[in-house]
Amino acid sequence: MIKVVILGAGNVASHLCKAFEDSKEVSVVQVYNRNKNSLQSFPPEINTTTCLLNIKDADIYIIAIADDAIKPFSKSLPFTNKLVVHTSGSKAMDKLSKTNRKGVFYPLQTFSKSQVVDFSEIPICLEAENKDDLKLLQNLGNSISKNVQLINSEERSKLHLAAVFVNNFVNYLYQVGSDLLLEDSLSFDLLKPLIKETANKIETLNPSKSQTGPAKRNDIKTIENHLHLLKDSPYKNLYQKLTKAIQKKHNN
Amino acid sequence: MIKVVILGAGNVASHLCKAFEDSKEVSVVQVYNRNKNSLQSFPPEINTTTCLLNIKDADIYIIAIADDAIKPFSKSLPFTNKLVVHTSGSKAMDKLSKTNRKGVFYPLQTFSKSQVVDFSEIPICLEAENKDDLKLLQNLGNSISKNVQLINSEERSKLHLAAVFVNNFVNYLYQVGSDLLLEDSLSFDLLKPLIKETANKIETLNPSKSQTGPAKRNDIKTIENHLHLLKDSPYKNLYQKLTKAIQKKHNN
Repeated sequence: MIKVVILGAGNVASHLCKAFEDSKEVSVVQVYNRNKNSLQSFPPEINTTTCLLNIKDADIYIIAIADDAIKPFSKSLPFTNKLVVHTSGSKAMDKLSKTNRKGVFYPLQTFSKSQVVDFSEIPICLEAENKDDLKLLQNLGNSISKNVQLINSEERSKLHLAAVFVNNFVNYLYQVGSDLLLEDSLSFDLLKPLIKETANKIETLNPSKSQTGPAKRNDIKTIENHLHLLKDSPYKNLYQKLTKAIQKKHNN
Repeated sequence: MIKVVILGAGNVASHLCKAFEDSKEVSVVQVYNRNKNSLQSFPPEINTTTCLLNIKDADIYIIAIADDAIKPFSKSLPFTNKLVVHTSGSKAMDKLSKTNRKGVFYPLQTFSKSQVVDFSEIPICLEAENKDDLKLLQNLGNSISKNVQLINSEERSKLHLAAVFVNNFVNYLYQVGSDLLLEDSLSFDLLKPLIKETANKIETLNPSKSQTGPAKRNDIKTIENHLHLLKDSPYKNLYQKLTKAIQKKHNN
């Protein structure tokens, strides 16, 4: 049984806690958070504390807090030579205090409070300073996912950057689509099957091959018609930018 | 039994043909295409022709060809006063020749040759000049989909514009993500669960509420780190543009 303490009580912390509790190989011996309120969403059988000095003994301490707080928080931990990992995509392992053994346990996924997540498909990106710790993190990762990967800090920051494009920026485009329909009182529901199919296509076709649309086929008439529809829109410039990028990529 | 003739042999034509053949209420009496080769991908039980003068009698003639060819092609049809519809998102119904009764049958989805499509969830956007024709198109739509909508040409062009954002532009961002990973020899597979979850989230959260990431939380350090990673990249400018757009939307 791998004993873990989760440090933090946000989305990543609560989803990880649930996944570990569902696995037979991991025990969440405690969840720490400085603010008591956030701890109330954890199930009652989980031991919680708001006091750093009361943190229990464990095999792995998992910091799941805001990126910028990782460095100072890791320094404030009142123990030494334990395996302490963070869960951030963008922070290097070295941001952790050297008072403990360092590692990273980064689940590459987007987490919302309300959305149930199936961890089994989520890539868990691991890094550690030494082989034994890496082995332990691999066991921890395998307990909840079939997709455990060794990824160093440099690779991980690139992965996080790519994730911003396919998650944050894509979601923004969904919102643009929703906004455009709202102007004509059309329901966003109309776009949902298309959005899902666009995402599902990546399983069988690489995105470069599955590119379609007026920019790809250099359909100037349709592009002009769209720019006319967008003539007073804040999204006109973004349309032009993305159209040019696709034209450049596909028509040289 | 609704008798249809499909005019064209591309992705939309072949997917529609399959969907109609699977339904009990529609019979595809013929598929026309000027080029014989493309007709060979249709099942042998479907009657095909390359000659306009041999087109059979039907209740509905469905033009599924390149947008710009719709207008001249509809003029070249050697019959009058029949119901002729096109399947384009961006062309107005009026682009069809007035020698026949006009209509639109627009399935709002992205079609690839290799990908099997479940029509039952696809919005079918209909338009017709008269009530009887609209009723007939509704019956045709209901034979393959649970989601049949009356959408006029103006609304449809807005819908098509929004579809470009959530399909063509989103797919381009997938390709950017793939490219960025390739630079570090990382597999695009790592991003696939994230891409699917991002698309699935729209069922429970509107895109404005589910926005996350460094731009949304105004995390200047991470944004600067990303811009540093992109310093020689053709995608730097796009990153800046989308980041600013999200910051403006969410942080005023």
